[in-house]
Amino acid sequence: MDKLTLYIGNKNYSSWSFRPWIALEGCRIFFEEVLIPFDFPAGNPRIREVSPTGKVPMLVHGEFKVWESLAIIEYVAELFPDAGLWPKDRQARALARSISMEMLAGFRALRNACPMNIRRPVSRLDLPEGVMDDVARIETIWRDMRALSGGPFLFGAFSGADAMFAPVVNRLEVYDLVSAADTLDYMAAMKALPAWQKWEKAAREEPWIVPEDEA
Amino acid sequence: MDKLTLYIGNKNYSSWSFRPWIALEGCRIFFEEVLIPFDFPAGNPRIREVSPTGKVPMLVHGEFKVWESLAIIEYVAELFPDAGLWPKDRQARALARSISMEMLAGFRALRNACPMNIRRPVSRLDLPEGVMDDVARIETIWRDMRALSGGPFLFGAFSGADAMFAPVVNRLEVYDLVSAADTLDYMAAMKALPAWQKWEKAAREEPWIVPEDEA
Repeated sequence: MDKLTLYIGNKNYSSWSFRPWIALEGCRIFFEEVLIPFDFPAGNPRIREVSPTGKVPMLVHGEFKVWESLAIIEYVAELFPDAGLWPKDRQARALARSISMEMLAGFRALRNACPMNIRRPVSRLDLPEGVMDDVARIETIWRDMRALSGGPFLFGAFSGADAMFAPVVNRLEVYDLVSAADTLDYMAAMKALPAWQKWEKAAREEPWIVPEDEA
Repeated sequence: MDKLTLYIGNKNYSSWSFRPWIALEGCRIFFEEVLIPFDFPAGNPRIREVSPTGKVPMLVHGEFKVWESLAIIEYVAELFPDAGLWPKDRQARALARSISMEMLAGFRALRNACPMNIRRPVSRLDLPEGVMDDVARIETIWRDMRALSGGPFLFGAFSGADAMFAPVVNRLEVYDLVSAADTLDYMAAMKALPAWQKWEKAAREEPWIVPEDEA
């Protein structure tokens, strides 16, 4: 089979890149990684050269390009149906997609106010309206899905749905937004993944600082 | 099989509802429709009673609930794999998901400035920054996909990807945002669908006015 190459941005900041990266790494899919840092004020022109949207993440398979974090996960799930990217049960898979798409399209207040920042020391911000509503809905999703599946991840074993929420796990931690025991338990399970630790280590070693993402 | 019931909002305004509705109707999937108008200033409390997110659209299949427009399309595509909700070719299907997710997550400038409004007489607005960039990207997507597939729809025959862009077809028309012949040709193909015409007729007959969506 042609190799898979995943184009990503800075590991410290690129929440969109983190999703397909941890999905593939966490499900033991072999891929090559090309990191294009957005360390220019206007972004990195190399991204526009390779990506149809001018954005990362993008997956290249042979000559074929797929973009958008969740579309990459869907494509790889079709290539490797036994890798566990989606739950095997049809209804669980449908719920995994419903909550992944809530994440893809929503939670704008939280995402705008609290950029993903792997290196950030834990501290609180003055939060604009709507952020804690987003946090409450995310905690409800996690609670409901883990109650249905038995945990420790949203659908039992780690899946693409957990990957879609990985950047939010960082946000809830570093901006000190949650205290419920079951929320912290889920976040601990995510942070204990070898894939998480590999990403975090690389993020901490990156030299680039993006001032507008340092809230 | 248990029946499918699709909960939707006002046909004149609810762009999120239009997507799964025209996907199912356009692919000849039988479903019942429950319309809950958001004709209160604070929204309609009936939506919160039935939907896990407090939002429409939502699909109920027996006792099982699926939400988010594209997750509904994915679920029904799994139930009816021969209905044409997704292209049969794997790479075409991956592209269909990439562009559907661009639509799901993006084009915020256009969507905020130009609400879907089926009844609106065609006229221009003063547009904030970013709207015409969104329009240009949408036209590029349509052009590229129809060039690959041969048209008339994005992947040859009508599919879930066209459904995801249906509200944008209305926006580009009623705010008079486009003039390229191939763009207008695609919009004409969409508006000629019997499913489009059925939705439009019902939207025009609705009594509800939502002032904040009358731009």
